[in-house]
Amino acid sequence: MINKRFRLAARPVGLPKRSDWTYEELPVAEPKDGELLIRSLYISLDPAMRGWMNAGKSYVPPVEIGDVMRAGAVGEVIASRHPDFKAGDYVSGMLGMQTHAISNGRNLFKLDAQAAPLPKYLSVLGMTGMTAYFGFLDVGLPKPGDTVLVSAATGAVGSIVGQIAKIKGCRPVGIAGGRAKCEYAVSDLGFAGCIDYKRGPIFPGIAQHCPEGIDVYFDNVGGEILDAVLTRIRLHARIVICGAISQYNNTTPIQGPKNYMSLLVNRARMEGFVVFDFAARYAEAIHQMSQWMKEGLLVSKEDIVDGIETFPETLLKLYAGENFGKLMLRVAH
Amino acid sequence: MINKRFRLAARPVGLPKRSDWTYEELPVAEPKDGELLIRSLYISLDPAMRGWMNAGKSYVPPVEIGDVMRAGAVGEVIASRHPDFKAGDYVSGMLGMQTHAISNGRNLFKLDAQAAPLPKYLSVLGMTGMTAYFGFLDVGLPKPGDTVLVSAATGAVGSIVGQIAKIKGCRPVGIAGGRAKCEYAVSDLGFAGCIDYKRGPIFPGIAQHCPEGIDVYFDNVGGEILDAVLTRIRLHARIVICGAISQYNNTTPIQGPKNYMSLLVNRARMEGFVVFDFAARYAEAIHQMSQWMKEGLLVSKEDIVDGIETFPETLLKLYAGENFGKLMLRVAH
Repeated sequence: MINKRFRLAARPVGLPKRSDWTYEELPVAEPKDGELLIRSLYISLDPAMRGWMNAGKSYVPPVEIGDVMRAGAVGEVIASRHPDFKAGDYVSGMLGMQTHAISNGRNLFKLDAQAAPLPKYLSVLGMTGMTAYFGFLDVGLPKPGDTVLVSAATGAVGSIVGQIAKIKGCRPVGIAGGRAKCEYAVSDLGFAGCIDYKRGPIFPGIAQHCPEGIDVYFDNVGGEILDAVLTRIRLHARIVICGAISQYNNTTPIQGPKNYMSLLVNRARMEGFVVFDFAARYAEAIHQMSQWMKEGLLVSKEDIVDGIETFPETLLKLYAGENFGKLMLRVAH
Repeated sequence: MINKRFRLAARPVGLPKRSDWTYEELPVAEPKDGELLIRSLYISLDPAMRGWMNAGKSYVPPVEIGDVMRAGAVGEVIASRHPDFKAGDYVSGMLGMQTHAISNGRNLFKLDAQAAPLPKYLSVLGMTGMTAYFGFLDVGLPKPGDTVLVSAATGAVGSIVGQIAKIKGCRPVGIAGGRAKCEYAVSDLGFAGCIDYKRGPIFPGIAQHCPEGIDVYFDNVGGEILDAVLTRIRLHARIVICGAISQYNNTTPIQGPKNYMSLLVNRARMEGFVVFDFAARYAEAIHQMSQWMKEGLLVSKEDIVDGIETFPETLLKLYAGENFGKLMLRVAH
């Protein structure tokens, strides 16, 4: 049995390129006592990966040069010498960018493969969904009737935020790149409107779709769009800083929000969060979101690409805005 | 009787200059029925004045070209045809940059001239004090033991924030310009330390004085200092956006905080406020701060300049950091 994996070879400058990785194929190790062997089936690709490749303090330690790239995955236990897991179990965890992983069982979650298709455990029922749920509800503090603006609105997180906003009686408005995504946001995700940032400056779209201003802005992108939004927030608005994908591959300093004094004028707040802080409540979110899925109130779209070998190029889809739904690799059937 | 006043003649570009004002001397008007005439004694000079001179939406309407400049003042009623006021009463209100004002009594507060010297009603017992009290306590949400960093630490607002922080069991650290201000911050205001931003980059000073990071940053200045602070905030830090005096006279766009993603890494918050929102609770703050003054826990310093004629040049002291304490004009004795 062969393990295929990617290790970090160099800290990228700008967009990661293939030479920033070392691809290896090597024999799969045997689990020792207390360990188990997992064959990964789907591996999550996330915008945050770019940050993990940088040196220096962040909310998680950086991936060191030579380490297998950090990645969330779902897989099947194929051998176990751990009392809590047996061959045939489905699990999710940070298994890394590799086809096979040895685990000691820590931070590994058993999945019910009957309850939902496995890819959902990397999207709406995984970290992505948790990020949307807690970031929007606990940091955004939405109230019924609020206008909720979401960037990357058809992305993995944004699409869920928009749907939860609607469920909670808010009026979600999206920002997405291209006509197809904008149409999908309105027709399938229930956004009241969607602004196509690829068509030009977004100011007119914000004015049109958020005529009374913005109560909650769930920001996945940063940059120019955050600055534009700041000019249209309402009194006591909450800006949830979930990410800043427009800035992750900068080779120059990050663009700070030059309109941040709008926070003062509007007595508003900009707040960041990290989903791991809500780990004790993941079960609550999974239960609630499963319920909404059963009721037909919550859908999710996965963008599944075959083959771990494609990782370096597939990852770039995220930063080019080319994914449509939660991006992941299928590495086994 | 002659009223001396300044009207806005032009919207300034960069620092306001004398030609941006029209200075006039004209006969004082008579109060009509329901009105009163006030002779101003002290007029407040505030950093926010620069923003009021700009066109466009803010938390208050702009001062229009031709209007008497907006300014807070304390004065003495010298004639009254208003049932609630009589000659000899001392009052405070937005009386404008003029020596005499006609008022209909709205938003006018009677002062107890025995309880505190009149200049205190423009500093610790006025809008300045209210700004410090509510901004720090209600937006900064300090907890005992917190490290509280305050920029413009010897300024009108910052000096009060530092002292309240100490009263509340926090550890206040200041940022101020020059050795004399830094010494005053520590010896008279009780800051645990003070960083002199005029001596060079403030990173080493922050590292030295806030070795465990910053829980609350009360920001009056924005710009480079805000960016430096963002690199040293602690988990769940609160950044209170009170002002951004370093940016008010920019002729280029405001410098946004390029390290704002530290809010995400540290699950932190940046929040603005406007003191007027707390008007219903001013009495509470005045009572509390008067009490602290009596107990010797709270002092304030006023920087009093004689003569309304000096207004255009005296105002610039604020933006050059040349004031030492709450800046105001004395326009009568």
